Amino acid sequence: MDPAVREYIHENQDRFLKDIARLVAQPSISAKNEGVEECALLVKKMIEEIGGTTKMLKLEGAPTLVYGEVPSKSTKTILFYNHYDVQPVEPLELWKSPPFQPEVRDGRMYGRGVSDDKGQLVARLKLIESYVKTRGEPPCNIRFCFEGEEEVGSGSLGRYIEAYPDLFKSDAVIWEYGKIDEEGRPVIGLGVKGMIYLELVVRSLNQDAHSMYAAALPNPVWRLVRLLNLIKDEREHILIPGWYDRVLPLAPDELDVLDAEPSEAEHLLPTYGAQEFAGKMSLAEAKRALASRPTANIAGIWAGYTGPGSKTVLPAEVHCKMDFRLVLDQDPEELLAAFRAFLNEHGYSDVEIKVGTSEPAARTSYKSPWAKAATDAGEEVFKVKPVVEISSAGTGPLHVFTRRYGAPAIDLGFSPHDDAIHAPNENIRLDYLENGMLWLGQTIENYIAES
Amino acid sequence: MDPAVREYIHENQDRFLKDIARLVAQPSISAKNEGVEECALLVKKMIEEIGGTTKMLKLEGAPTLVYGEVPSKSTKTILFYNHYDVQPVEPLELWKSPPFQPEVRDGRMYGRGVSDDKGQLVARLKLIESYVKTRGEPPCNIRFCFEGEEEVGSGSLGRYIEAYPDLFKSDAVIWEYGKIDEEGRPVIGLGVKGMIYLELVVRSLNQDAHSMYAAALPNPVWRLVRLLNLIKDEREHILIPGWYDRVLPLAPDELDVLDAEPSEAEHLLPTYGAQEFAGKMSLAEAKRALASRPTANIAGIWAGYTGPGSKTVLPAEVHCKMDFRLVLDQDPEELLAAFRAFLNEHGYSDVEIKVGTSEPAARTSYKSPWAKAATDAGEEVFKVKPVVEISSAGTGPLHVFTRRYGAPAIDLGFSPHDDAIHAPNENIRLDYLENGMLWLGQTIENYIAES
Repeated sequence: MDPAVREYIHENQDRFLKDIARLVAQPSISAKNEGVEECALLVKKMIEEIGGTTKMLKLEGAPTLVYGEVPSKSTKTILFYNHYDVQPVEPLELWKSPPFQPEVRDGRMYGRGVSDDKGQLVARLKLIESYVKTRGEPPCNIRFCFEGEEEVGSGSLGRYIEAYPDLFKSDAVIWEYGKIDEEGRPVIGLGVKGMIYLELVVRSLNQDAHSMYAAALPNPVWRLVRLLNLIKDEREHILIPGWYDRVLPLAPDELDVLDAEPSEAEHLLPTYGAQEFAGKMSLAEAKRALASRPTANIAGIWAGYTGPGSKTVLPAEVHCKMDFRLVLDQDPEELLAAFRAFLNEHGYSDVEIKVGTSEPAARTSYKSPWAKAATDAGEEVFKVKPVVEISSAGTGPLHVFTRRYGAPAIDLGFSPHDDAIHAPNENIRLDYLENGMLWLGQTIENYIAES
Repeated sequence: MDPAVREYIHENQDRFLKDIARLVAQPSISAKNEGVEECALLVKKMIEEIGGTTKMLKLEGAPTLVYGEVPSKSTKTILFYNHYDVQPVEPLELWKSPPFQPEVRDGRMYGRGVSDDKGQLVARLKLIESYVKTRGEPPCNIRFCFEGEEEVGSGSLGRYIEAYPDLFKSDAVIWEYGKIDEEGRPVIGLGVKGMIYLELVVRSLNQDAHSMYAAALPNPVWRLVRLLNLIKDEREHILIPGWYDRVLPLAPDELDVLDAEPSEAEHLLPTYGAQEFAGKMSLAEAKRALASRPTANIAGIWAGYTGPGSKTVLPAEVHCKMDFRLVLDQDPEELLAAFRAFLNEHGYSDVEIKVGTSEPAARTSYKSPWAKAATDAGEEVFKVKPVVEISSAGTGPLHVFTRRYGAPAIDLGFSPHDDAIHAPNENIRLDYLENGMLWLGQTIENYIAES
């Protein structure tokens, strides 16, 4: 990596951390619409401070999407996707310092959003600043896509991209987040699962009844139980016809990578006090399942009396929230239609399906030049082989970039594994910032050099 | 019936109604411990006013049970079971007059407890007063068992009877309540179902997890779904081994009575907007089921996220409240053991069963002299054939009298079918009181004459 840039990064760590604190200090809770637009303005200012130009994109019903550019003489363009909104702070009483008054303690900075995702956002801006200040421009054209509603589901990101298709085109994408694992290894994230979130509603009566009438009146909970029992078998196999038709399994070499890499699966049983994996999977199967298996989860269920003591009631209706995680190349619309047909065929045509969000999976090959550039860069900076995560078990709107533009996308960042995101005392390690920035810079330099 | 008694009853209707209002005006909400002991004292006073003697029985943790006696020269004893406590009054805003300020409108008296059960209680006292005032004594020895926690489950009634076994002995029992149906026919209730109320708790994790881990971690709701699916088939047959072993089916002649009588089943589908009976039963089957079929009802279920919108969570545990209605001669303890064994056998030994209440069914034969006395008396007074209800679909602590003492017990009263018990604007019809009293008096006279 260019020694001048490296030097600049090293010399300015304190100032960069101050800028992270400055952005964290501006509340931006999208779930409560608290400070979101004020934060967008601050982000705009921070892009301009590093020499970028900005556009404040605003679609009705969505927070401002802050778009930015820093040009170069290169023909290549890299897009940084981040979000400036944060999770709510409750329970407030568990915070050791106020969530929007960033505090440094024991080598860490604490504050809501410091890791997810403001620290990453600022680190990336400051990396580009470092290139601009030392070499006059970054190694390639840089585009920033900073949205303000990731923490409530990125519901408008697709609409923004539809509305401004030229702005978001790039050769490669750096996704929002990334971490250093508990053994100090950088982790490269290569994909996310898709998801269908829905709510089933089964109604049998127009009002709750005394449960003595259960001898004659139908109980919707029993109906739901029968319906749910049709969806999945005890081996965690989803029984809806067509569910696996389009599944693009991991290739043998991808499975080799997956099997060889460390995985969250190793910590899950002790962390959650579980006796065994779902469907009595082995650890090896659980690792593969997290990265590559479709799921059918019951996220919530409720009916009738749920208070203390007893009430003899026959509930009129029951609700069940489910999330189905999808893998490449499952199509959410197709699966929703298959699910509806499945219910109808089994006599549940009256059961309502309220669809929440749905989005497909996205994945970048570990063999792509972009992934290889990051892997090599990680080893160069950290002096240790990076962890390659074929796909996260989680979901994100990665597909809007990978599908439309065919751009490879990777997660790459510097958050510690114990950063408490979405929880009280969210934090970053101060000593990870410099290497995190160097890793990203080296990745870009590797990529440009190879292409 | 003795014309002097009949005359006295007729002449004193207004005063009797004032006494009902007097008792209703004293709040006695057992669920909130509001006015309960004050009400017990008033009941004591009212027994003494008709010439009875009383004992204020008091066990720790229970409201006072007001016991009373009015002796006679007869060798026969009849026990009246009633309760002086009432349901809460909420929602208060739906009452047209204050619940504890009884008001007469359009031929009805409105107030909390006026039908359930204070009106019945006072009518019975006043019937005995009528005998005492005109003939010096009732047709047989009368015992009053007036408890103060029926509306919260009669949890101490069994203890009281254990503690004072001699006081509650009788040749026949009049149960708390009884009604005149929508066509003006008196209804004789001959039994109640038993019940086991319990809560199942299935835990898979020590804390909720992000639902992306559903690919590897077990979800307790799926386990509960599989477990529940084992309990009952689509024909409403309970699949727990041994569940029906002790069921004493209705005899052919009892079934004839049941089939011939009107039933609530006829109104259930339209009232509750249901498409069909549970298990696709016919109306005839539904009638029989209400009176004589064991049930397994899900009264409540909850897990995970139950709010608006979506949350991707893998719940750590799920709760399910169930009530099982029992028929003669099912034994709650035996069935609970069978259920536990059934769960263990299917691999659910870790599932917790929290037992709430449990009590057996009770039933008096329609051919018993006591039931026949009431049936004949009903026809004599109302000039119409009474409706005989072989068993209610509901549950009550009738068994504590029928099991220990072998006493036949019947429900017999004068509440209108639309009396709104447990609801706002609870009421009785003023014009039903006199016939209700005559019916009870005639029943006792018939019974004594035959024995």
